[in-house]
Amino acid sequence: MALHERARDLFAELQDAICNKLEETDGKAKFREDRWKHRDGDDGGGRTRVIEGGHIFEKGGVNLADVQGTFSQRLADRLEVEPQPFRATGISLVIHPLSPLVPTVHMNLRHIQLGDGTAWFGGGADLTPYYLFEEDARHFHHTWRTVCERHEPADYKRFKNWCDEYFRIPHREETRGVGGIFFDYLKEDPQQVYAFVEDAGRHFLEAYVPIVERRAAESWWDRERSWQLVRRGRYVEFNLVYDRGTLFGLETQGRTESILMSLPPMVRWTYDQRPEPGSREAALLEVLRTPRDWVD
Amino acid sequence: MALHERARDLFAELQDAICNKLEETDGKAKFREDRWKHRDGDDGGGRTRVIEGGHIFEKGGVNLADVQGTFSQRLADRLEVEPQPFRATGISLVIHPLSPLVPTVHMNLRHIQLGDGTAWFGGGADLTPYYLFEEDARHFHHTWRTVCERHEPADYKRFKNWCDEYFRIPHREETRGVGGIFFDYLKEDPQQVYAFVEDAGRHFLEAYVPIVERRAAESWWDRERSWQLVRRGRYVEFNLVYDRGTLFGLETQGRTESILMSLPPMVRWTYDQRPEPGSREAALLEVLRTPRDWVD
Repeated sequence: MALHERARDLFAELQDAICNKLEETDGKAKFREDRWKHRDGDDGGGRTRVIEGGHIFEKGGVNLADVQGTFSQRLADRLEVEPQPFRATGISLVIHPLSPLVPTVHMNLRHIQLGDGTAWFGGGADLTPYYLFEEDARHFHHTWRTVCERHEPADYKRFKNWCDEYFRIPHREETRGVGGIFFDYLKEDPQQVYAFVEDAGRHFLEAYVPIVERRAAESWWDRERSWQLVRRGRYVEFNLVYDRGTLFGLETQGRTESILMSLPPMVRWTYDQRPEPGSREAALLEVLRTPRDWVD
Repeated sequence: MALHERARDLFAELQDAICNKLEETDGKAKFREDRWKHRDGDDGGGRTRVIEGGHIFEKGGVNLADVQGTFSQRLADRLEVEPQPFRATGISLVIHPLSPLVPTVHMNLRHIQLGDGTAWFGGGADLTPYYLFEEDARHFHHTWRTVCERHEPADYKRFKNWCDEYFRIPHREETRGVGGIFFDYLKEDPQQVYAFVEDAGRHFLEAYVPIVERRAAESWWDRERSWQLVRRGRYVEFNLVYDRGTLFGLETQGRTESILMSLPPMVRWTYDQRPEPGSREAALLEVLRTPRDWVD
């Protein structure tokens, strides 16, 4: 089977496994599924699964897509290739927990194939806590480092820095969260890259669920919730102003609801809100302003 | 006095008059003021006034700016001019009422002057209801038409269509609201254009406050509030993905809190929310999908 089809099948399998486990963890809400076709229906499609109003997950989406099209001159310029047909398959997920103590998580894995034969994998996973638990950040990064170390084409240090750089919000002088890994244009040794992407995808639950289980049991109050809603605003600002995936999706007339399922359920924008010096809220900001190393 | 200075003084006077009247209308909350300097302080600055937690206004901001800088190659390309120094002064306001029956409003008036001597006015005002009251849309448009009719360089029909086009959200196939007027690059007859801009600025309160007074007295329930929060998400999507003013501000390293004061206080994103056919919510969408003429 060609690599693109293998990737697509892997992503479909990951979507099942991840949704099942998240439902089991939540214990209340179930994912609903929408199957959709890209544009007029001859260009592929996907299945979007969304969970809302859970015990643990206030809103989350896991999207699977396999679409084709032709790069506009503008998109081709941005990717530094000739305008040409492309095929793209990927899994993309964002989970927004109800508790401000449980971090938001995002993962995306994708395979792009151009008409001229070029093909590559890209992806990443990053964690966005509202309160900093160093143990959680270390666990998340440790999982990804262990995965990277098993694969020749993966370089944890490089992917970690790439993640900090990619998920930066320049107008806030902050990163979106405590990072993770990010990679793109991995073209060399396609079989080895595939093995890395597969391994990463299969370790998502191990990277995230233990954190959820640890934090979901702790109580929180209005103050924490209010801070979470304000911080979610930063998530929106990043996704709508800077995220290439989101803007690419909107520009290529992707399915709007599947692209914007990443936006948080409730958000607050308060003018010039600043945490008190020395507070737990200020401690989070410090880490977002100066990304740290989470594993030795 | 040079036109740029006259415009700046006019905008300052408008800020005072508008904030005073809105405070009086609200009856509870007061604007707080932040005076700020652009970047390192030698490039001008402004004063941002924000009202939060009012009886009527949940959040609103009226910003005054007079800044200078140099267009980057990228901004110069976008404006189709040579990279050169510029000076910009403007007033910009967005008011988000608490009641879902009271529409959100936006107005912006600005004067730009380039190093090469070129200068122009731009601006506009648009109304974003959550429920459609035709009487309100007609009143708003009628006020602007009357103002436009008094001034040679103003053309209500053209500015109305420009507004519908500018405040379009392509990925939603909707306009942001019921429109109003929008204009840019008004260069001919600077004195006449100034007179139009002044007249427009002085009629903002007449265009908006009667609508507020009419609707603020009506009761609303959870259903209306919930719809308002979802619709506010569209406002965020427009401002962060498409609004040139917002993106220009962020790109030229303007004061983030003054640029993003336009974002609503509370917002909700619910996956694939669709109003029931025949409902009042559906009636609003119809008008947003097919802009209407509001005055004969």
